[in-house]
Amino acid sequence: MQISISKNDLLDGINTVIKAVDNSNRYVNSLYECLLIDASSNKIRFVANNEEIGIETVVEGKIIKNGKIAIAAHFLQDTIRNIPDGEINIYTDDNLVVTIKSGSIEYNINGKDGDSFNDLAPIKREEKLVINELILKNMITKTIFSISESNANKVLSGESFIIRNGNLCIKGIDGNRVSVRNQKVDDASLDKEIVIPGKSLKEIIKLIGSDPEKSITLYFMPSHLAFEYDETLIVVRLIDGKFINIDNFFIKDYETKATFNRSELVNSLERTLPLIKEDKKPVIIDINKDVFEVKLVTNYGSYYDKLFINTEGINIKIALNPKFLLDALKAIDDDEVSLFCMSQKNPCFIRDENDSYIYIVMPVNINL
Amino acid sequence: MQISISKNDLLDGINTVIKAVDNSNRYVNSLYECLLIDASSNKIRFVANNEEIGIETVVEGKIIKNGKIAIAAHFLQDTIRNIPDGEINIYTDDNLVVTIKSGSIEYNINGKDGDSFNDLAPIKREEKLVINELILKNMITKTIFSISESNANKVLSGESFIIRNGNLCIKGIDGNRVSVRNQKVDDASLDKEIVIPGKSLKEIIKLIGSDPEKSITLYFMPSHLAFEYDETLIVVRLIDGKFINIDNFFIKDYETKATFNRSELVNSLERTLPLIKEDKKPVIIDINKDVFEVKLVTNYGSYYDKLFINTEGINIKIALNPKFLLDALKAIDDDEVSLFCMSQKNPCFIRDENDSYIYIVMPVNINL
Repeated sequence: MQISISKNDLLDGINTVIKAVDNSNRYVNSLYECLLIDASSNKIRFVANNEEIGIETVVEGKIIKNGKIAIAAHFLQDTIRNIPDGEINIYTDDNLVVTIKSGSIEYNINGKDGDSFNDLAPIKREEKLVINELILKNMITKTIFSISESNANKVLSGESFIIRNGNLCIKGIDGNRVSVRNQKVDDASLDKEIVIPGKSLKEIIKLIGSDPEKSITLYFMPSHLAFEYDETLIVVRLIDGKFINIDNFFIKDYETKATFNRSELVNSLERTLPLIKEDKKPVIIDINKDVFEVKLVTNYGSYYDKLFINTEGINIKIALNPKFLLDALKAIDDDEVSLFCMSQKNPCFIRDENDSYIYIVMPVNINL
Repeated sequence: MQISISKNDLLDGINTVIKAVDNSNRYVNSLYECLLIDASSNKIRFVANNEEIGIETVVEGKIIKNGKIAIAAHFLQDTIRNIPDGEINIYTDDNLVVTIKSGSIEYNINGKDGDSFNDLAPIKREEKLVINELILKNMITKTIFSISESNANKVLSGESFIIRNGNLCIKGIDGNRVSVRNQKVDDASLDKEIVIPGKSLKEIIKLIGSDPEKSITLYFMPSHLAFEYDETLIVVRLIDGKFINIDNFFIKDYETKATFNRSELVNSLERTLPLIKEDKKPVIIDINKDVFEVKLVTNYGSYYDKLFINTEGINIKIALNPKFLLDALKAIDDDEVSLFCMSQKNPCFIRDENDSYIYIVMPVNINL
């Protein structure tokens, strides 16, 4: 193999696929984990692949001699980063030694046989959904914080994607809260319900752009989902299983609706965090006519603050984990937000009128 | 005690002294380690103090009622950070409960008796040295990387300050290299030779400013050194002992003088680092007439680069730790730098004509 490629294109290609280089096994030196440079056809493909996620991207460059080679990915990244801007020549010999040349600089490093590399399986481009990349990125970012971090329930370590009746619903659930984002999509006939590992989604939101004019295509396969944009393809393995139906405990009825300035409550709740650093206590939200009191007592001391709000319905006092409430409030863009409460024991929720977002937080069960 | 103080002044005071709050003992929750707010006289002093370093600063504010209180320092910092800009009221009651009030926000936290706080001992302002703060900061920053990180030799975990014949010499030594900075000072009569712990110096360079117009005063005491600037006083405990005299092995003779562009060599040496991540090998510097070759072979592969230079004297080949050479080259501001070599076995050194900097690196003993 012999290729010539600009430093920046080379580095972009490495940086894209490296997110699929396995470094989960701490006992294996991740420096030895490889990416594939495949110049065996008329384009230069970079590929990395692990059990959970595989990424392929096509890089601009000149193929002088066809071939493919696998190279330690993090090592290659570190090496290319420090080479000056300009054209870089990469070629291999019969002993799988890779030469990287740029001006007076020459590296010779040991590669691995490209034919033995675990390449991506071909994807089926049949059932698909086209969606704006910024919208998709936001839907994931604004729900993924509430997936379960424990491995006790594998399904809850992922996010649910339900496409039904022309609507995409993305949902994250842990034992104490639910985060939901809804978005109209073009294709009304598609009906899919899948669970995608949170770990893979965290890599995907780092990779996909934020261009409000650009689209990304999702391809649905029995046990995989592929994301395609520009010259890049990301394939993730799905989690087998379904989410519980949350419609039962998400009741649209409420006794109290408190409408407030979102950033005022965010700021007030953030001020409680030093007090709960080592002593996890819930914050008491005391909703009265036009006044919203925030109270907290821990071993360190106490906190009190008062916000002026608009209340409909009865007065209510509820104990909540301030971090969960903060995560939800920070994921919302609206200046004005409504909190709906039923009782001290019922989940409270924050949603807008058309359910484009729904955040449900379970109250903490203490005597108030 | 009752004081009124702006949020920014309060936070500046906390941020200054907190560097002396002890968090070395991981088994003690550092949140409980205190700083002192002392408003018992006509100014508001903030103080923190541990075995190695003590810091005091005077903060602008209004004293409404005299008194002093000790408060968990990191907790106070986290708390004040999130309070909106403006005046903050702090007052204590007879039970050492501290109230922090700002608008509708009220914290009540448990303080500790200010009289039991381990306050700074009074300092002696007799033997002193006045020096520009930027110069001092640079001298420390550009030598401290070469102090010893092991605790085997306590003296070498510090830096040597020698003031003699109107010259300040700051020196850091570990087993493989020496870094020296020299600076003329006004007072030709002062004669001092002390060793200051590296850990304390690292805090000091974070605290002191970089104003080329401002001075800092050093006060010498038998077992302490004090740094005074603005309204802030930093007192550090000295290390008992002296550095070995390096004049013996720092020989001004040389066989080869190679003069090169500093940043070209920095860039070339940085490109060797990925190769030595897990496989520590020296870089071979091969100095010929007008050509400076950089060569490295490790388990990962090999690196080669060539720089055009100006050579005086004989050709020489020497094996060096690239990190040590890099640290020295990066600490120098000159565009053009000279490397002096005697033989493969002798230390090589980089210095300017008036010895304002001297960096000595021991060669690695391998067969070349």
